[in-house]
Amino acid sequence: MIRVVAKGKLKPGVRVEDYVMLAKELVAETRKENGCLSYALHEEVNDPTILTMLEEWADEEALGLHNQSVHVLKIVPELRKLRESIEVNIYREVK
Amino acid sequence: MIRVVAKGKLKPGVRVEDYVMLAKELVAETRKENGCLSYALHEEVNDPTILTMLEEWADEEALGLHNQSVHVLKIVPELRKLRESIEVNIYREVK
Repeated sequence: MIRVVAKGKLKPGVRVEDYVMLAKELVAETRKENGCLSYALHEEVNDPTILTMLEEWADEEALGLHNQSVHVLKIVPELRKLRESIEVNIYREVK
Repeated sequence: MIRVVAKGKLKPGVRVEDYVMLAKELVAETRKENGCLSYALHEEVNDPTILTMLEEWADEEALGLHNQSVHVLKIVPELRKLRESIEVNIYREVK
């Protein structure tokens, strides 16, 4: 299993609700994918302009297919317009 | 439920195994705590010097007690000596 943390920072002046509305469509579609174990948008408790997707995938193949999915190719460019930055890390548990 | 992402970057020259050995003791003790739903060390797939704790807590009270626990007060300063930086974010799911 692999975990992804995709930490986004909104541009100044962007409304959190606008970002969340777009992201909700991405969440709904992504959860239907094979190999998606969990996928959820999170807000930073101390900074509402930080919005982070926390994800769990069966394997790298499933993540790769997700990154080429119709909903990612459609919605992610729209989210990108609202973000100042994004920091993506892919993790494996150390046992 | 709240989630924590504590992303650490090792100092140049520090051995990953030395960090992992210390962190494993912290993981074992933390998992015994009330309100700890999950707590696991992760390595970045593309950069082995990034070591991140991914955590799930029942509530902020449980996290607060964790931060004052004997094992945190004993082990975290040792981990800190091996890290160049740490970035901690606390999240709630946006539903």
